[in-house]
Amino acid sequence: MDMEKVNSMDFREFVDVFGNVIERCPLIAAAVWSQRPFSDLEDLEQHFSAFIDALPQAGQEGILRCYPDLAGRELQRGTLSAESQREHSAAGLTSLRAEERLRLAELNAQYRARFGFPFVLAARLSDREAVARELARRLRCPPALELRTALGEVKKIGRLRLADRLGADSARM
Amino acid sequence: MDMEKVNSMDFREFVDVFGNVIERCPLIAAAVWSQRPFSDLEDLEQHFSAFIDALPQAGQEGILRCYPDLAGRELQRGTLSAESQREHSAAGLTSLRAEERLRLAELNAQYRARFGFPFVLAARLSDREAVARELARRLRCPPALELRTALGEVKKIGRLRLADRLGADSARM
Repeated sequence: MDMEKVNSMDFREFVDVFGNVIERCPLIAAAVWSQRPFSDLEDLEQHFSAFIDALPQAGQEGILRCYPDLAGRELQRGTLSAESQREHSAAGLTSLRAEERLRLAELNAQYRARFGFPFVLAARLSDREAVARELARRLRCPPALELRTALGEVKKIGRLRLADRLGADSARM
Repeated sequence: MDMEKVNSMDFREFVDVFGNVIERCPLIAAAVWSQRPFSDLEDLEQHFSAFIDALPQAGQEGILRCYPDLAGRELQRGTLSAESQREHSAAGLTSLRAEERLRLAELNAQYRARFGFPFVLAARLSDREAVARELARRLRCPPALELRTALGEVKKIGRLRLADRLGADSARM
């Protein structure tokens, strides 16, 4: 899909295609549509990032709260979004041993209790061992730093999802 | 459900219950959770409204773009949210004659082309004749006024959905 095609979309097509670039936040894609035309993938990414950065802290935390736990109840229940399911698979999170799953569930619960949002990580750039290690590490970070780190992961996930939709080479990401 | 119960919810429960108060924008409920505790229904409503009012115009338009057309393709396809389906039924929009549906589809398309977002109306406070009449009237409004009107309808819909969830008397609305 090229940018000419993207720039020609009405808002319903645009939200159909890009509505889950930020997990369960079609509002953000729908807002970004107002900024068309876009020159390229980087430009489009930049508008998603700028929207996130301009939100008040509660709104930024709200975005994070729309993401599922990694290897959590939504994976078990089969209610992950298609994008998130794919990311779980890529990181090997769909085939954890019971004790690995339990360990992640414990860390996820501690993280949610400490920060008030779930642990978000670009799983496609990680693997099952690294996810648990990174979760344990970030659990000890100061809240203000952790909010910035988590939003950075939201943007990385969004960039990969955009690249998928545009058929761009995501190897460079 | 009383406010003590609401105030005791973790963010996952809160988003499960209130995530669609603003159509397909769980981000907003998830952001409002940061503002707990809430004193009563009005206080909770006020936080939803304040979040909407604080967004830049593109974000406000983005919210509107997450609503379905009234009696549009999502009703036909059976992909409306449960709340929206109920509102369609209450206004008699699920049993239109073919020519009424066609007339609304034409007006909806004109409205989307003129304003860049779909026509949003608190259908439960309306009926099938009034919907078409109001759509034809608002189609002629200046864009800045129409944006305000449409966001007012989003808030009315949200208030009714909140009252439903809380088991409050919505007759006073």
